[in-house]
Amino acid sequence: MRKVAIIGIGQTQVSEHWEKSLRELAGEAIFAALVDAGRETADGLFIGNMLSGLLNGQENLGVLIADWVGLQHAEAVKIEAACGSGGAAVRAGLMAIASGEMDCVIAAGVEKMTDAKPNETTAALATAADADWEAAHGLSFVAINALIMQRYIHQYEWEHADFAPFSIVAHQNATHNPYARLPFAISSHEYATAKMIAEPINLLDASPIGDGAAALVMVPADNISSNGRTNGRPLVTIEGSAMATDNIAVHDRLDPLWLTAAEISSKRAYSQAGLTPKDIDFFELHDAFSIMSALSLEACGFIERGQGPRLGLDGEIGISGRIPIATMGGLKARGHPVGATGVYQIVEVVEQLRGQAGNNQVIDATIGMAQNIGGSGAAIVTHILKAHK
Amino acid sequence: MRKVAIIGIGQTQVSEHWEKSLRELAGEAIFAALVDAGRETADGLFIGNMLSGLLNGQENLGVLIADWVGLQHAEAVKIEAACGSGGAAVRAGLMAIASGEMDCVIAAGVEKMTDAKPNETTAALATAADADWEAAHGLSFVAINALIMQRYIHQYEWEHADFAPFSIVAHQNATHNPYARLPFAISSHEYATAKMIAEPINLLDASPIGDGAAALVMVPADNISSNGRTNGRPLVTIEGSAMATDNIAVHDRLDPLWLTAAEISSKRAYSQAGLTPKDIDFFELHDAFSIMSALSLEACGFIERGQGPRLGLDGEIGISGRIPIATMGGLKARGHPVGATGVYQIVEVVEQLRGQAGNNQVIDATIGMAQNIGGSGAAIVTHILKAHK
Repeated sequence: MRKVAIIGIGQTQVSEHWEKSLRELAGEAIFAALVDAGRETADGLFIGNMLSGLLNGQENLGVLIADWVGLQHAEAVKIEAACGSGGAAVRAGLMAIASGEMDCVIAAGVEKMTDAKPNETTAALATAADADWEAAHGLSFVAINALIMQRYIHQYEWEHADFAPFSIVAHQNATHNPYARLPFAISSHEYATAKMIAEPINLLDASPIGDGAAALVMVPADNISSNGRTNGRPLVTIEGSAMATDNIAVHDRLDPLWLTAAEISSKRAYSQAGLTPKDIDFFELHDAFSIMSALSLEACGFIERGQGPRLGLDGEIGISGRIPIATMGGLKARGHPVGATGVYQIVEVVEQLRGQAGNNQVIDATIGMAQNIGGSGAAIVTHILKAHK
Repeated sequence: MRKVAIIGIGQTQVSEHWEKSLRELAGEAIFAALVDAGRETADGLFIGNMLSGLLNGQENLGVLIADWVGLQHAEAVKIEAACGSGGAAVRAGLMAIASGEMDCVIAAGVEKMTDAKPNETTAALATAADADWEAAHGLSFVAINALIMQRYIHQYEWEHADFAPFSIVAHQNATHNPYARLPFAISSHEYATAKMIAEPINLLDASPIGDGAAALVMVPADNISSNGRTNGRPLVTIEGSAMATDNIAVHDRLDPLWLTAAEISSKRAYSQAGLTPKDIDFFELHDAFSIMSALSLEACGFIERGQGPRLGLDGEIGISGRIPIATMGGLKARGHPVGATGVYQIVEVVEQLRGQAGNNQVIDATIGMAQNIGGSGAAIVTHILKAHK
């Protein structure tokens, strides 16, 4: 199997882009990634997106965007795995290169959510859950996560305030990210007194939706010059890539407090990379809700079961901590344009590995991990990237 | 690159399956394919589907179906390329195996369209076109094809009646297909006098939508016993597989009467297989509308530009003709459950190559081609399969 390198990255700010169409948004990120890579075209385009049909009245999204960015006649499809669509699109691009079918691929994610009415967006997001057995009973996505958090707090004897560091760290990191949706710091008092959404999840436990796009240019690593650097930057390769799934409905899982798909996909990625959790310098996890940060950290082996909040309380998740997370703001503060999020995560990992993360730079970052979750833990994609310095 | 074999096929009848949910429909085809292959599980599931979000309120479709059919923790995503989603899902499965990432893949297509009101379905199908520049102006999908057919009849001096053989042959072939939606013959008089839909497309130029699912089990060809047969059947391998795209909006194309993406993808597939159009024993083309049959035959090199209807008028497209098409009824009469259609086509090619096509068997069929189109010629996937007897 051919190893894959990421040689270009691009992103738009996550925001309310009422002035830009879906294709314009995607194009902005893709053109930036091509310029960054020093390339003009690609053989294929894999678009991570969840809601273009429901919220933008547009399917055939691969073709729409390939056409717009001038990838004339290139292969192009949309990949959907709910909020895990972006990570799945990166996996699709990896397989296209590894199989020898393509020599240069663009994997991008785009989502345009803020033109719709809030209740439309909530209903659209619920299509990530089991339509017949969860959504049909009125369970919104925040409600499903609230049930999980409620149970977690009860079973492992935490208090709501123990989750504060996840949100505080993410917001702090976002203050230095020009692409972030909510680039401001929050205090523990603000966290504790934020408006309740679905008990125990309050406004500052939840990530904001948004409009945004992110893109990568991927090539076989053996195409890169042998000194291992591109444009004077460290070469970044994908060392581990895996996806696993779980029962779509939380009530079908043996343990609703354990992300089995995160455990399986991260173990597979560690094994491919020949690494263990100790080797990971930072972790862009899927903090759609603060409870998800705890569950991801546990399932990926960074702390024992039920102890996720401990890492935050002990100061281990900040930029200079043992396992920095959400280094550019995470879903919580960079924002969560759902189908694009998984690609934003990889873009941010590459920024760190290249040493381009500015005030948020993780010192000596060499190995970065990203994990993208679709549904309430149902579809989980894990990537491990390495800088060759 | 590892060559891929198809060792299992399954399908449901294309019909109005009001009694079956989306997952039940997909499961029926997938279980049939697994039984046919003599397998119990797979490493990954690629679901071709266009409209589950809009018409069934369900995304995260890969996980939903993997969960339902018991592919516990397997990788699973939905692939969308409008009506070309099924063919694109087969391509995704092929790349997963060819890359070495997986050793057994299920590629399936499912679509459930008849629960919705007809105007909802028409609006949903229009999302395959350019939402901002075609659909927004009220252009339905049949209207786009009507404009193309109108221009074709004018430019190449045909009459509407010259397209009759495409529909008559498809309906004739469907009479022997137990999975067909419209398993009855039609006469040239019925064709000529059918209800007008969007001039010059009448009811018998257009394929019917429907609910249906089809599935394949794919493995590396080198996993098969060296005598080249499985369960006493000829081994069927994928010899060519390619996808190309074109401008999404017909008005952006230099020549609206030429399927450039069909030409490119078929030439690439011919080249991979080391074959020419003369070597193709039969062709499952994308006869969503009769005009599309003519355009596909031309772009794939079976007849010169502007002369597609000639093949029908000369009796060349029937089961014993020079280039049999729609051998099990095609989109026109087997039915067109949009995101599933591309997988139905491959299932039917395998049936022919195994000699399981009953009354519709193409004698000595060794090489079969399938072509699946998303949008009005915008996303085109071509596969060439071979029987090793």
